[in-house]
Amino acid sequence: MTLLINPERFKQDFDSLAQIGSTGTGGVDRPALSPANIEARKWFLARAFESGLETRVDSAGNHSAVLQSSNPDARTLLLGSHTDSVPMGGRFDGALGLVAALEAVRTVKDAGLSLPVHLEVIDFTDEEGTLVGILGSQAVAGTLSAESLKSPRGGRAKLEEGMARAGLTDDGFLSAKRAPNTLAGYLELHIEQGPRLARSAIKIGVVSGIVGINSFRLRYHGKANHAGTTPMDARTDASLGASAFVLTAREMVARDFPNCVVNVGQMTFKPGAFNIIPGLAELSLEFRSPDPQQLNALEASLLGLANVVGRQWGLILEVERVGHCDPAPMSERAQAAIAAAAESLALTHTTLHSGAGHDAQSLAAITDAGMIFVPSRDGISHSPLEFTEWDDCVNGANVLLRAALKVAES
Amino acid sequence: MTLLINPERFKQDFDSLAQIGSTGTGGVDRPALSPANIEARKWFLARAFESGLETRVDSAGNHSAVLQSSNPDARTLLLGSHTDSVPMGGRFDGALGLVAALEAVRTVKDAGLSLPVHLEVIDFTDEEGTLVGILGSQAVAGTLSAESLKSPRGGRAKLEEGMARAGLTDDGFLSAKRAPNTLAGYLELHIEQGPRLARSAIKIGVVSGIVGINSFRLRYHGKANHAGTTPMDARTDASLGASAFVLTAREMVARDFPNCVVNVGQMTFKPGAFNIIPGLAELSLEFRSPDPQQLNALEASLLGLANVVGRQWGLILEVERVGHCDPAPMSERAQAAIAAAAESLALTHTTLHSGAGHDAQSLAAITDAGMIFVPSRDGISHSPLEFTEWDDCVNGANVLLRAALKVAES
Repeated sequence: MTLLINPERFKQDFDSLAQIGSTGTGGVDRPALSPANIEARKWFLARAFESGLETRVDSAGNHSAVLQSSNPDARTLLLGSHTDSVPMGGRFDGALGLVAALEAVRTVKDAGLSLPVHLEVIDFTDEEGTLVGILGSQAVAGTLSAESLKSPRGGRAKLEEGMARAGLTDDGFLSAKRAPNTLAGYLELHIEQGPRLARSAIKIGVVSGIVGINSFRLRYHGKANHAGTTPMDARTDASLGASAFVLTAREMVARDFPNCVVNVGQMTFKPGAFNIIPGLAELSLEFRSPDPQQLNALEASLLGLANVVGRQWGLILEVERVGHCDPAPMSERAQAAIAAAAESLALTHTTLHSGAGHDAQSLAAITDAGMIFVPSRDGISHSPLEFTEWDDCVNGANVLLRAALKVAES
Repeated sequence: MTLLINPERFKQDFDSLAQIGSTGTGGVDRPALSPANIEARKWFLARAFESGLETRVDSAGNHSAVLQSSNPDARTLLLGSHTDSVPMGGRFDGALGLVAALEAVRTVKDAGLSLPVHLEVIDFTDEEGTLVGILGSQAVAGTLSAESLKSPRGGRAKLEEGMARAGLTDDGFLSAKRAPNTLAGYLELHIEQGPRLARSAIKIGVVSGIVGINSFRLRYHGKANHAGTTPMDARTDASLGASAFVLTAREMVARDFPNCVVNVGQMTFKPGAFNIIPGLAELSLEFRSPDPQQLNALEASLLGLANVVGRQWGLILEVERVGHCDPAPMSERAQAAIAAAAESLALTHTTLHSGAGHDAQSLAAITDAGMIFVPSRDGISHSPLEFTEWDDCVNGANVLLRAALKVAES
């Protein structure tokens, strides 16, 4: 097997996609179902069409390009990622995997290979969670709950706005499930988004599993009052509980859950004026663990802490769950195919878990899923500073191509 | 002197005004130059016109109702307050003083008194600081800086939006100064907004002076990064410095500045997503002291603390001053008139300073200014729960009327 992707064509497409929603500083700003995200998806279908692939959009808004097998009853091997980004994110996260999958499938087509599976490149809707998180892939896996559409982490109004823009419906999301027996597997190339490969100078990461992620909206209720006439010792200031939680949650996780992470990504006070004591403090809480039992223990500890801190400051705590994803192991078969592909290209490789969530964790529920990581400079991502050497991108695309051929033929 | 206001007419007007921008829960939501605030000001001019008073709007948007003296060269005694509220505020703050002043002037008119001064009821623009703070009264005093219009505490965009709605301009604000020799003084009735009168069951507060208020926007700059793949000990998380500042600032003020107050009324993180470590935390800081030197010392201590906290968390601190008001003593002559008016009505009274800022502090720079406080139930204000017994409102209006007559005739 000496098949290799076309690195120039791959680079041209990667650079074209990075122009859509460009921040002007190397990054992209393409939140899920924003006009820029929708433009990126149109660009993807146009490139697929120009390459002679069949294009499709399912009822969850997932965009696909398909190379049909000569066997009409063949199962489908999905190769995917996403074109949406976090607000003001990087140009590699998601986009690299999608363009590499497109390039890999074009390479197979150009080589005139006859495969026993259909190959489908798929751009999943809202991987990043600006709206719901791994939304399109959960829809395909049939694991999307009506509840998470009703109170999504980005707020229902924002979700509805995006759905209107893309012509999507709740019913569509809830009926996009694909039958497991029609699928031959799922493979995804992605940047690591952490520092491990770069630090150890290893070229390819074979992902063993993906962390579980839970998220909550916490609200501390105090009492709004005049910030000039209310003595310091007579306040019920919601900002104090929220601030104390941010600091103590970090301390607790670092001490008691050293392989886990916690983040408070947003905090706002209401009414929100200079001269009013905050009567309400709302914060966005997210935490991750690679182990299901540990994720539960972490959740209990964090919510317990939030309660204790609230009581200390005389506040009432309101807890709203906004997201839950179980840790997801990757398939042994896919891991073996990826490792063998790396070997065939003489690329160093190692096994690691993913600290970030990915569409592969949704797919793992219904088919053999595997992920390939390539190094992230300084481990930076979700930022315009996110960067991966182009040689590493090409290596990743070739591993994806060869791993796909191995899975297709196994 | 046996003149008394008409309590029924006063009550009717007070209740009518409270309907404009009503929260439905006893409060009003009339931020400065919002549609509701503009409607309230139109209502005021209409009521004044119906009462046979002359109406005026100056170039700072201050709305007035005037009872002319028979002497055309007379000076003007201003009786004022404001119709704007904090977001979701109470119905007494500002509105009580304005309606009482209107009622007092109508009482003088109905009695056919011939006074040696013009009486002018004035509704000052943006007392609360949703936009700039004591904006209209600073404009009248000539103490408004071009700088505070350029970077107002509520943001320039919001100020411009309000100005467009009300047909106001920067030049108008900066040219609304009134000559001190045309003024005979300024009197304002206001709820205390603190618990002192209510606790001691004293009916009338004679205000000795008003606290100085400084405000800043602080920004901690860290590094936005992926909240799943960045280990806890490798983060430069702006939320940590901001949270630590909220807690330590409170501690420091309570310990080292027991007669002062500090508030962080708003905090936001950017980019602001569940799954991104905050790269920027912005907070709204305000603090108050009745003494000019102490206010400077408090400012130095708080900004010093903000710097230390930033360094502890590896963050860069950016400091933007958004407001400054010196402490303002009230005139001895006005205080004496208010005390005498309370005596003439057999009302208990005491001298106290104001922890809240008021338009009277602007006026104190150019004329004899005085303030009358009436009790606030539980000291609550800037909230729909704000409440003052109606008898106390009537007492306040009568003290205002009689103090005005004393100042007019002195």
